[in-house]
Amino acid sequence: MDWTTDEFYMREALKQAELAYQQEEVPVGAVVVANDRIISRAHNLSERLNDATAHAEMQALTAASHALSSKYLPDCTLFVTLEPCVMCSGALFWSQIGRVVFGAHDEKRGFHSWKSLALHPKTEWTGGLLEQESSELLRSFFRARRK
Amino acid sequence: MDWTTDEFYMREALKQAELAYQQEEVPVGAVVVANDRIISRAHNLSERLNDATAHAEMQALTAASHALSSKYLPDCTLFVTLEPCVMCSGALFWSQIGRVVFGAHDEKRGFHSWKSLALHPKTEWTGGLLEQESSELLRSFFRARRK
Repeated sequence: MDWTTDEFYMREALKQAELAYQQEEVPVGAVVVANDRIISRAHNLSERLNDATAHAEMQALTAASHALSSKYLPDCTLFVTLEPCVMCSGALFWSQIGRVVFGAHDEKRGFHSWKSLALHPKTEWTGGLLEQESSELLRSFFRARRK
Repeated sequence: MDWTTDEFYMREALKQAELAYQQEEVPVGAVVVANDRIISRAHNLSERLNDATAHAEMQALTAASHALSSKYLPDCTLFVTLEPCVMCSGALFWSQIGRVVFGAHDEKRGFHSWKSLALHPKTEWTGGLLEQESSELLRSFFRARRK
């Protein structure tokens, strides 16, 4: 595995999370990569769109499908700063995405505990990349909101 | 429970499924109801949008949130002709929708088998309403495609 490259892409996802943070959205960012190129970048838009389904991954998948004119993304990798929730892992399942790399673990709503059911059997996945930065952004966001 | 009213709304969802069928989309339809009014109608658009996440429920939820200018839909009911998949039940969770009524069961990808995790604890649900019609539309669609 080319860890440097994964880290590069996760840093791009983190930049998206930071944009979300600045816009008072829950700071989660995602990018989709195909053939060593970023084909979509997105962050959570639930507040701006008033839509609880507007997670970073959903936006990034839809944009990637548009970019490739393809429902299926078997040759793509999704980098996302937070472990995908059940909705997003279901979306990743339908997309047949080739690989998923996430940053912070989400023990409460992440797909991890039901991974045998949630992701497509052909999808590889890695968790914990840049976990500290990814988590810290979320912690800082919610800390600021609790004040 | 007012079964007649439920059946009325499910027939509206079925009309959406029939529209999908005519457009060579997998025939699943949905409506969202609030205060005895349909606030969104949608069907599967995966083919037209080239987007594996464009399920009827996702479209209907997003449109309902737009209609009410609210991320959360606790006073709404979703009627959908097929048991929601994992992605859609995750979306229903985030929306905090008040009630879900579905037609045909989906033993393979439906949320039913993991219901304790998938839906929001405050969401009521009912399955099997107009199951025969809902299933038959799907069977007919896939039968025609296999020829």
